[in-house]
Amino acid sequence: MLTETTGGGKASGMALHKTGKTERVRVPLGNRTYDIVIGEHLLERAAELMRPLALGRRGVIISDTNVAPLYANRLRLDGYETTVLTVAAGEASKSLRQACRLLEKLPGLRLDRQSFVVALGGGVVGDLAGFVAATYLRGIHFIQVPTTLLALVDSSVGGKTGVNLPQGKNLVGAFYQPRLVIADLATLRTLPKRQLRAGFAEVIKYGAICEAAFFRWLERNYRRVLDLESAAIRRAVRRCCECKARVVSADEQESGLRAILNFGHTVGHAMETLLEYEGLLHGEAVSIGMCCAARLSVKRCGLKEAEAMRLRALLEASGLPTRLGERLRAETMLPAMRLDKKARAGKVRFVLLKRLGSAEVSDQVTDADVEEVLNVCR
Amino acid sequence: MLTETTGGGKASGMALHKTGKTERVRVPLGNRTYDIVIGEHLLERAAELMRPLALGRRGVIISDTNVAPLYANRLRLDGYETTVLTVAAGEASKSLRQACRLLEKLPGLRLDRQSFVVALGGGVVGDLAGFVAATYLRGIHFIQVPTTLLALVDSSVGGKTGVNLPQGKNLVGAFYQPRLVIADLATLRTLPKRQLRAGFAEVIKYGAICEAAFFRWLERNYRRVLDLESAAIRRAVRRCCECKARVVSADEQESGLRAILNFGHTVGHAMETLLEYEGLLHGEAVSIGMCCAARLSVKRCGLKEAEAMRLRALLEASGLPTRLGERLRAETMLPAMRLDKKARAGKVRFVLLKRLGSAEVSDQVTDADVEEVLNVCR
Repeated sequence: MLTETTGGGKASGMALHKTGKTERVRVPLGNRTYDIVIGEHLLERAAELMRPLALGRRGVIISDTNVAPLYANRLRLDGYETTVLTVAAGEASKSLRQACRLLEKLPGLRLDRQSFVVALGGGVVGDLAGFVAATYLRGIHFIQVPTTLLALVDSSVGGKTGVNLPQGKNLVGAFYQPRLVIADLATLRTLPKRQLRAGFAEVIKYGAICEAAFFRWLERNYRRVLDLESAAIRRAVRRCCECKARVVSADEQESGLRAILNFGHTVGHAMETLLEYEGLLHGEAVSIGMCCAARLSVKRCGLKEAEAMRLRALLEASGLPTRLGERLRAETMLPAMRLDKKARAGKVRFVLLKRLGSAEVSDQVTDADVEEVLNVCR
Repeated sequence: MLTETTGGGKASGMALHKTGKTERVRVPLGNRTYDIVIGEHLLERAAELMRPLALGRRGVIISDTNVAPLYANRLRLDGYETTVLTVAAGEASKSLRQACRLLEKLPGLRLDRQSFVVALGGGVVGDLAGFVAATYLRGIHFIQVPTTLLALVDSSVGGKTGVNLPQGKNLVGAFYQPRLVIADLATLRTLPKRQLRAGFAEVIKYGAICEAAFFRWLERNYRRVLDLESAAIRRAVRRCCECKARVVSADEQESGLRAILNFGHTVGHAMETLLEYEGLLHGEAVSIGMCCAARLSVKRCGLKEAEAMRLRALLEASGLPTRLGERLRAETMLPAMRLDKKARAGKVRFVLLKRLGSAEVSDQVTDADVEEVLNVCR
């Protein structure tokens, strides 16, 4: 079954996978430059891909109870001495308390500053493990091995690590770049379809904020991507990584441009906080958030009504939710949005679209605007 | 009494302090460049000194139960909206758990990314508050206001933040530079003499590793510095800050040169860990550690016996301990030293002196060398 779900090939011994095409996207950040390697069956080639980084011999693999049983043994790290630490699957593990528990385990593993942390899993594992790598011994090497579409196109690239506090998402963290991202598309075959669709919300986001041509391509090819057709999924992931690499290398620490990557996240994060991370996947919250932000963009930023509708249509065609529902009201959403890290002096800031493919950060959105749009998007 | 111990002047209203000479040492780190302002009665001028940084209006002051009652009210932050968070005085507060408790309090204070953390206290408060500033919202502005000699010359400059784990000191942290260091020498007048002497160990360290002329000046002037004569203490602090600024700007993240600042710390940290941070101040542990490292330097690095003796003599004349005592034996010290962050692949690395004023990192020291020297230094 394991063999079947990963698309054939043996997990150990002489691997004879048809590895297909492998591509590299470079994230240019001076002496913190790194590559994203995109292809299939890369887990089995991890040691070979890591070798040029000249890391120390010891490392720790942080994974979760969903991913570790499927992939920890496939991750071939011959020549390294590694320990797997597994956390419970789910957003609840992305907590400061969980990060502390992991950090307290590391001294027993005799890591030093040449040692490395591998994040094997989705966004929760990547963000948590990244924070651990960023802070242990004031920073040890970090390798991202994302196994969800969300993590592949978003959280594993760009160096944002973070954990949640009870009061809000990602309130504690660090900017800390990985040394390498190993994007093994074969791992997506075991991903539940709902998770795949949720990650696809972030793929659509890149089209919306970065490149109208990619958005149009997604309108024509979303089904092929969601069906994981090799060429289509590789192209989608590569395009997202290129877009993110460009934005991140222009503004690593989110002093300006990078904030556009949070399109849909102001409302999205507030929803997740208020629903206590339950019942709604991150990408689903972002999907709803993008629809709200598109409405605000029509109102405040000159986005054409027709383009807002195309965005909603693509999200809905991809099986994503686009409406808030009855549970969340403006009077509870607004205080949660003020905790957003983009907020300044108590003023909520939104990423708005001027048109498909072009975004900007705005602090011109009033509470009344938000209230109106949240009611419309119910 | 409060007025008396800070050397005159009113704490509020129209301040009429004789402020004496104020000096600035710049730490050149590209877009993270910052100044150390050195002088007396600077707490009362904090708002004026911070104004050019254009920080947000809200901030949090982290202090401890010794320092807050003396100085929190003197720190004039007119125009800012601040909250004081006080931790128990002592090394036990410099823990990951304490950092978590502080981080969990911040969302209730409605800080945003323009907000700031002020560390008002010694090294424990500075390292702890710095870690909190480095990680909250992935980093908010940080101002150091050191009130101990140790913090003035060492921990408040250079951007090393960190907290302890039960297994060792500073095992979790981040490189995170302050925006400004306000070094108010008047605060040293309330510092217990034993603390002052302990901080002086680090002053001597700078002479030993950076500048033979400064070491000679200290041999002649240590009494004036320890008596807090204005010109002498200002000169000593300025010289240490200049030395540290030079080293840190050449090697911010301790990939090479910066490690020399850890002279005396390999043995020192191990002692502190084994004694569970009790009964021995950091500077006292470093004093003993420097004597051990000097012995190793004679053995392995060509340091002249006479210079090792001058170092020991200056430490002893300053009232600092130079001997390990009976409690600690090599067989327990060596495993603790292997947890040192300078260690590589299980091999302990030492900072050794070639001569007074010139240091280097060595991995040529064997376990047998360490054992021999620890016995000699008993």
